[in-house]
Amino acid sequence: MSEKIIVALDAMGGDFAPIETVKGAIEAIKVENSLHVSLVGREDAIQSELAKYEYNKEQISIVNATEVIEMAEPPVLAIRKKKDSSIVRAMQLVKEGKADAFVSCGSTGAVLVGGQVLVGRIPGVERPPLAPLIPTVDGFALLIDCGANVDAKPSNLVQFAKMGSIYMKNIMGIENPRVGIVNIGAEEEKGNALVKETFPLLKACPDINFVGSVEAREIPYGAVDVIVCDAFVGNVILKLYEGVGGAFVKVMKASMMETARGKIGGALVKPGMKKVMSKFTSSEYGGAPLLGLKGLVVKSHGNSTAVEVKASILQCLEFKKNDINGKIRESLSTSEL
Amino acid sequence: MSEKIIVALDAMGGDFAPIETVKGAIEAIKVENSLHVSLVGREDAIQSELAKYEYNKEQISIVNATEVIEMAEPPVLAIRKKKDSSIVRAMQLVKEGKADAFVSCGSTGAVLVGGQVLVGRIPGVERPPLAPLIPTVDGFALLIDCGANVDAKPSNLVQFAKMGSIYMKNIMGIENPRVGIVNIGAEEEKGNALVKETFPLLKACPDINFVGSVEAREIPYGAVDVIVCDAFVGNVILKLYEGVGGAFVKVMKASMMETARGKIGGALVKPGMKKVMSKFTSSEYGGAPLLGLKGLVVKSHGNSTAVEVKASILQCLEFKKNDINGKIRESLSTSEL
Repeated sequence: MSEKIIVALDAMGGDFAPIETVKGAIEAIKVENSLHVSLVGREDAIQSELAKYEYNKEQISIVNATEVIEMAEPPVLAIRKKKDSSIVRAMQLVKEGKADAFVSCGSTGAVLVGGQVLVGRIPGVERPPLAPLIPTVDGFALLIDCGANVDAKPSNLVQFAKMGSIYMKNIMGIENPRVGIVNIGAEEEKGNALVKETFPLLKACPDINFVGSVEAREIPYGAVDVIVCDAFVGNVILKLYEGVGGAFVKVMKASMMETARGKIGGALVKPGMKKVMSKFTSSEYGGAPLLGLKGLVVKSHGNSTAVEVKASILQCLEFKKNDINGKIRESLSTSEL
Repeated sequence: MSEKIIVALDAMGGDFAPIETVKGAIEAIKVENSLHVSLVGREDAIQSELAKYEYNKEQISIVNATEVIEMAEPPVLAIRKKKDSSIVRAMQLVKEGKADAFVSCGSTGAVLVGGQVLVGRIPGVERPPLAPLIPTVDGFALLIDCGANVDAKPSNLVQFAKMGSIYMKNIMGIENPRVGIVNIGAEEEKGNALVKETFPLLKACPDINFVGSVEAREIPYGAVDVIVCDAFVGNVILKLYEGVGGAFVKVMKASMMETARGKIGGALVKPGMKKVMSKFTSSEYGGAPLLGLKGLVVKSHGNSTAVEVKASILQCLEFKKNDINGKIRESLSTSEL
């Protein structure tokens, strides 16, 4: 029998909670017997969702939490004040070792703050990065950091590169992942002060496969597997990806509707376009891990449905099986950082 | 008779020079009698291109320059060493008042360095920004800065906002252009140190229409007319726009080719798609002005054809007619900056 893995799920987080979160949990436990999901949130709301399904009662439990942190709330204040919120309660479970991982589709800010304050960092980790997988023409790449570290230091970025490499190798199965730093030109002397200082540190790093600068233009073509940047730049990349893709489809649809020919062609290409759209606008690879914490924290998109919730929960299994945190600890202790 | 306007054109700059540069100049002078273009570059090469056309000889002259600055050359060194290059010679014409404006499709780095060193800044301008127009679903927006100011200060960004507003109002005809600062959330307290410091300064600025933060996701939808950011972020936005659009088309084409239905539909939507692609990948609005210099400098894309060269040259007419530099001077002197 394999070791039991307990995932605490923020049952109240996200646009479609608790309907889709509970459904995602039910679907996840059916895939893996060793998985137990603790649904954290309003007991009555969760209970009435659970009543819809047949499932193995030993794999699901409810942890009551009466409060919900809303998307628009200031994160630091919310974490401090709402002690009985699903996010705070669930993170405490991870901290106390009652859960191995935490998954939330709720407020990114609250998850980031809670991760640092409640779960705590692995010793040696300076700043835990949030690292979503973004789509490329032939796969995906890890964009690290999209979290809270908007004014990062060079040593932070070096840690991001290491943690991102470990994740891509062990969770996503990419051998020797290529690491690039986001820059405005390929030459080593290009960049802002942060990039210029970080570049030689990454170059000197023995345990990563640093391939140099990556220009934003090359990212969608899959030029690198681990995209290193500060969280301000990372957020701009993540959001622009979404925006350009969506705007592109909008103008294309409008142009098709201008002629009869375009209308007919548009109807024919619609299924293919939908596939492309889903590839370019949502992550098929579960949620974004907040790396470097004592327990795993996974942030799934606010508009996640059961499919994404399930994927994010199952991702936690791999994370524990592969002992990612052990590997991060080892990687940081063997280097000078 | 209207005042004569002299534009110095880097005849040797760009992927298709001197063929397309000379052609663009010929097409531009046919539009406007008051325009004179000084073709700067290798006399023999220019001469043999000019021989292909019928045109008013009084509107074209050649200024011989035997050297060419290549795209890959380090800009500072190139400007210093290649005194007889088309870029250096042309910029000297602007500096000496022998030309009103300079247009180049050559090395962006050399144009940025040359603009500062040779043409010189308007007194009061801290750093001249490069400001391309990027496409949106219903028009275009000015992305300021995409130049060399990768570690900008708050006061630089305030000047960018002012200069960008003047440009959009007077050249692009947008009344009361909406100014936004690129940020990772809509709230005032969000952002990195630079954005947090700049936000209240922009808010307090009386002569611009500041609408607050703009998230990268909203940029392609035309949320603002003037997009203010440091040049590192600006370059990431500009390049990612190109990359996501191109990658999107690539995966969409591939998905269409998978089925007979998709192939037929694809053939039907092709003309419409081409239109969308050209809208989203190239600027239809001439080149990017380098604002805040004593003379106008316009950087056109390296792969510009005669159409873009012509547009960039004609843009200079509007710039002079509207006395943009006079307006910039006035705007900076009436404020505390």
